[in-house]
Amino acid sequence: MAEGGRETLTVVGGGPVGSVLALLLARRGHPVEVYERRADMRERSVDAGRSINLVLCNRGLRALELLGLREDVLQLTVPVYGRLMHSLSGARTFQPYGKDERECNYSVSRSQLNERLLTRAEEAGVRFHFEHRLVAADLPGGSLTFEQPSGERRVVAFERVFGCDGAPSAVREALLEHPGHTATLEPLEHGYKELLFPADGEGGFALDPKALHIWPRGDQFLMGLPNPDGTFTGTVYLPLEGPESFASLDGAGAIEAFFARHYPDAAPLLSDLVPQFEANPTGHLGTVRCAPWHLGGRAVLVGDAAHAIVPFFGQGLNCGFEDCALLIRLLEERPPAEAFAAFSAQRKPDADAIADMALENFVEMRAKVADPAFLLRKQVEALLEREMPEVYRTRYAMVMYSSIPYRVAKEAGVVQRGILDELCRGLERAEDFDRTRARALIAERLTPLLEREGVSLAF
Amino acid sequence: MAEGGRETLTVVGGGPVGSVLALLLARRGHPVEVYERRADMRERSVDAGRSINLVLCNRGLRALELLGLREDVLQLTVPVYGRLMHSLSGARTFQPYGKDERECNYSVSRSQLNERLLTRAEEAGVRFHFEHRLVAADLPGGSLTFEQPSGERRVVAFERVFGCDGAPSAVREALLEHPGHTATLEPLEHGYKELLFPADGEGGFALDPKALHIWPRGDQFLMGLPNPDGTFTGTVYLPLEGPESFASLDGAGAIEAFFARHYPDAAPLLSDLVPQFEANPTGHLGTVRCAPWHLGGRAVLVGDAAHAIVPFFGQGLNCGFEDCALLIRLLEERPPAEAFAAFSAQRKPDADAIADMALENFVEMRAKVADPAFLLRKQVEALLEREMPEVYRTRYAMVMYSSIPYRVAKEAGVVQRGILDELCRGLERAEDFDRTRARALIAERLTPLLEREGVSLAF
Repeated sequence: MAEGGRETLTVVGGGPVGSVLALLLARRGHPVEVYERRADMRERSVDAGRSINLVLCNRGLRALELLGLREDVLQLTVPVYGRLMHSLSGARTFQPYGKDERECNYSVSRSQLNERLLTRAEEAGVRFHFEHRLVAADLPGGSLTFEQPSGERRVVAFERVFGCDGAPSAVREALLEHPGHTATLEPLEHGYKELLFPADGEGGFALDPKALHIWPRGDQFLMGLPNPDGTFTGTVYLPLEGPESFASLDGAGAIEAFFARHYPDAAPLLSDLVPQFEANPTGHLGTVRCAPWHLGGRAVLVGDAAHAIVPFFGQGLNCGFEDCALLIRLLEERPPAEAFAAFSAQRKPDADAIADMALENFVEMRAKVADPAFLLRKQVEALLEREMPEVYRTRYAMVMYSSIPYRVAKEAGVVQRGILDELCRGLERAEDFDRTRARALIAERLTPLLEREGVSLAF
Repeated sequence: MAEGGRETLTVVGGGPVGSVLALLLARRGHPVEVYERRADMRERSVDAGRSINLVLCNRGLRALELLGLREDVLQLTVPVYGRLMHSLSGARTFQPYGKDERECNYSVSRSQLNERLLTRAEEAGVRFHFEHRLVAADLPGGSLTFEQPSGERRVVAFERVFGCDGAPSAVREALLEHPGHTATLEPLEHGYKELLFPADGEGGFALDPKALHIWPRGDQFLMGLPNPDGTFTGTVYLPLEGPESFASLDGAGAIEAFFARHYPDAAPLLSDLVPQFEANPTGHLGTVRCAPWHLGGRAVLVGDAAHAIVPFFGQGLNCGFEDCALLIRLLEERPPAEAFAAFSAQRKPDADAIADMALENFVEMRAKVADPAFLLRKQVEALLEREMPEVYRTRYAMVMYSSIPYRVAKEAGVVQRGILDELCRGLERAEDFDRTRARALIAERLTPLLEREGVSLAF
């Protein structure tokens, strides 16, 4: 394979990660066969009413760059420059994401992105087999059994299979039949539901199209991400059970009263709130951790199949694309079994770190962003970044705008929290924080960590 | 005069207040002669580079309604729904002004408003004499001496004169020659300078056109108000003297460094910053208090001439227009000397109250809006107003959206501050304030005050 051989490779899952991996493999000269459970989304909608928008940032874009698809895909996106928080009292606070507007996130519809990648992969010679659901796998023996909607089963032989079949991965299930393989699923007690905001004829006063919108409400929140057509994809995150939950919100009256109470400025913008709420499915979320991610050189998991994470850091897609780029690099350097093993060993700590950070961000998005003490810390941190970017970048920026390993970003974040705690003690106005003390704390605690890990803040 | 006689009346000052008063008097059947120091602004610009935008709200609009000019004038305005604060760290916070979008302020260019009112007054038969500067007055004797730009002097006899000649009023100077008349001028140690933001080709991301923008920086601030053509009239308020002041900012390098340091997000939007800063005059501000405002039935002061205030509550114009409406009502009820005396006695406590509140607001705009504890109080207050508007409206709303006397609004504000202090003690998130305690405090302290004054919160 190191010689760019013509071995046929098999990918299970034709989502964004499966498509990108298939493209990368095809560009290396392999015939690639992709098996996808669902129908071809370009022919009929497969995701109606459950389209959490995705966010593309540096890590994802770098993988697309390898394919020359960066600009092609950016056409589908809306740049988003910060988060705009809507308080219950009607105040709105915008926090920029990065240190300038070049550091932004790109909101993209999952289905539009997926369709574009499917087409580009087909153009590169990748063969897609839709409506093929993996129902059985003999990984050592090299055979996969797929079921089609008619009930017909098809057994396919393979040399090497890449499991890109997402959080409920059937390839992972097959791996788990082998000794030494473990997996845990940590379900979130919150679910989600899509609610579309129609395009605003007034020109976007209520919903600034250059921001991710959040309505933090303690134990729940609503968010909205812009689409190129002026609509916003809204998602409400609520407990699945309990007094105010998806289970309890039953009937038009209850739904309307709930939104009027918690989201008074958003509710009037959500046309057909009740029909949407009742028609759209309630999605479940969770974190999947498993190890190892491979079986010799036969099978390897990539993306959500290996490490499904909650969506609150906007990293699921980016992490998956970064997986693809790393795996391809490793495959260029060594034989498949070694590449798979190296991928699983090297990448797992980073996947664990982003899984943890995504869960932390859930608390931040639903609760902390409405807390004045938290906002003060955020302002001090933004000033640190603005005034001394050569030694201080936020954890958020490291995750979104650099390729610094997730694991290092997470460790740096712990150190940064301690520094901010000290700088904010007794502070009334962010602008007045002690710059001299800040430089000393950073030099003492943060810089040595970054130097030890060999990462640079010049991104 | 109570019979609607045809006595000719004289107004000194053809600004917005002088024009509105002249119109009201002309509608009552009087010939009205207006003498204005400056040239006719419809023929040539008289205010280039010093056009603090004005804000119209309920009090001002009610006076225009008496004239049937409300809609006519609203055409010139841009509605503004709240304040948008720009922190040094790049965060932006929007606070709505009222309890819903019907409670908004109308930004209007002083010169455009003035021109429209001049034209409407002329159409109603008012005669304007431009470039007539009052240089001497014999108020008891009924003669005024005006000087024209040529140096020529003209002596004019009058029956009754209305001094609408603004903060540096010459009519007030003449009143002060009479026993028992006193005046104080309290100059502000800050001056101001206009800086125009050109129209934003991008569609107003940086500067939302439906908000008043503030960049609070402790001892100084920048603000911006939208114009109908997409530009923003910016005004920077700085100490006149001191290390960072109008006196110290000398030369392009110093000006650019100053704006880059304090207003990094605004500076790039201010085209020609340095030429504008150097060419536009530095304006001075202050509070004028005097009493009584009249000399028998001969002369009376109206608007800034009687009570110039600092611009930080956006009430100068509104207070002046409300003066006009009150004075006309009093003139309908009693002979001129009594009406003038009643006007001076009744209105002075309100003028003093708004003068004080405007000074307080200066501190709020430049410093407090960046203080998290202040923002928490504001959020609790907004929730009070949203959840119990029948018993709680903010002082801001009383001033801007009701006709509750300024004096009562000021007193209510003191009581409200005490209530908010109690509710915010130890509070972390605004939403969690104690509703039961709030209702009890309001019933105990605020409601009795409002009932005693006979004012209603149903506005």
